[in-house]
Amino acid sequence: METNQTATASYIISQEQLLEHWQGHRRLTRRVIEVFPEDKLFSYSIGGMRPFSVMAMELIDLAGGISGIVNGEWKSTDEMSHANGNLPKTKAELLVLWDEVTEQIEKYWPQLSAERFQEVVMAFGAYEGPVYSTLLYFIDNEIHHRGQAYVYLRSLGITPPPFWERGN
Amino acid sequence: METNQTATASYIISQEQLLEHWQGHRRLTRRVIEVFPEDKLFSYSIGGMRPFSVMAMELIDLAGGISGIVNGEWKSTDEMSHANGNLPKTKAELLVLWDEVTEQIEKYWPQLSAERFQEVVMAFGAYEGPVYSTLLYFIDNEIHHRGQAYVYLRSLGITPPPFWERGN
Repeated sequence: METNQTATASYIISQEQLLEHWQGHRRLTRRVIEVFPEDKLFSYSIGGMRPFSVMAMELIDLAGGISGIVNGEWKSTDEMSHANGNLPKTKAELLVLWDEVTEQIEKYWPQLSAERFQEVVMAFGAYEGPVYSTLLYFIDNEIHHRGQAYVYLRSLGITPPPFWERGN
Repeated sequence: METNQTATASYIISQEQLLEHWQGHRRLTRRVIEVFPEDKLFSYSIGGMRPFSVMAMELIDLAGGISGIVNGEWKSTDEMSHANGNLPKTKAELLVLWDEVTEQIEKYWPQLSAERFQEVVMAFGAYEGPVYSTLLYFIDNEIHHRGQAYVYLRSLGITPPPFWERGN
C-alpha cells in the first residue's frame, strides 16, 4: 500500500472511495436539476433564497476547484459565475457545464497523490484548509443546497429523486 | 502508522478527521435546532414535509447507529423514534437526546479499529454497506435535512447559523 505522511493517524477512506462518493452525489444533483420545470429552475424561490439554477452554478464553480487543487490555479471568488452573474440561461446549458466539471474531476483526480489530501491549500484565494477538508466542503455544500432544492420541489408538488440513489 | 487492509488503495482521510468532521456538522445542526421557535420546530412544514423536530429525531436515531457499528446491536427501523412516533415534546428534550448521542459517538469511536471502516455491516437490519459509507450516509443525511431546515427558517424570516461554522 501507499503510505500516508502522518505516522500516528489511522486512515480509513480511500481516494477511490471519496471520488465515487462525490460523483454519486453529483449524479443525484444532476437528476434534481433535470426534474425542475425549466422556468422554476431559474425563478422559483422560498424565503428570499436564490433560485436553484444559481445554487447549482455555485456547485459547478466549487467543483471546478478540482483544477485549482491539482495545478494551483484558482479562480478568484469574483470570477465565479454564480457570484458575478454570468449564468447559463437554460437548463440544457447548465447541464452542459455540469457535465464538463464531471469530466474535469475524472481527469484531475488521478493526478492527486494520496499525500496531497493532507496538504493545505488556499481555495479560490480565500479559504484555507487541507485538501481533504476542502473537497468535503464542496460535497457538503452540494448536499446542503440540494436539500434546499428538495423543499422547492416539494412545495411545487414535484417528487424529488430518492436521496439514497446515487447511480447513473 | 497502522495499516489498512486493501493493499492497492490510497487512504486519504483519517479516523480522527472523520470524527471531527461529523461532530462539527452535529454542532451546527444543534445550533439550527436552537434557533427554531419552539412551536415551529414541532409544527412548521413546507410542501407536506415533516417538521424539523421529526427530521432531527431521525438524525439522532441514525447517529445512534454508532453503537450498532461497534457492538453489532442495532435497533430495527420500527424501533426508531422518528418512525414509531415516540418523539420528544419540547426542544429541551430533543437537545438532551442530541447531546446523549454526541457522548455515545465520543465513547464508541475510539473502539473502532481503522480496519472496521471497510467492513460491511447491515445497518438497522436493513441497509448493507461498508462502515465508512454507512457513516458518510449518516452525515450526508444530516446535511440534507438541515439544508431543508434552512429553508423553513428563511421562510419564517429567521437567519440560520452560517453553514461553514462548525466549532463550539
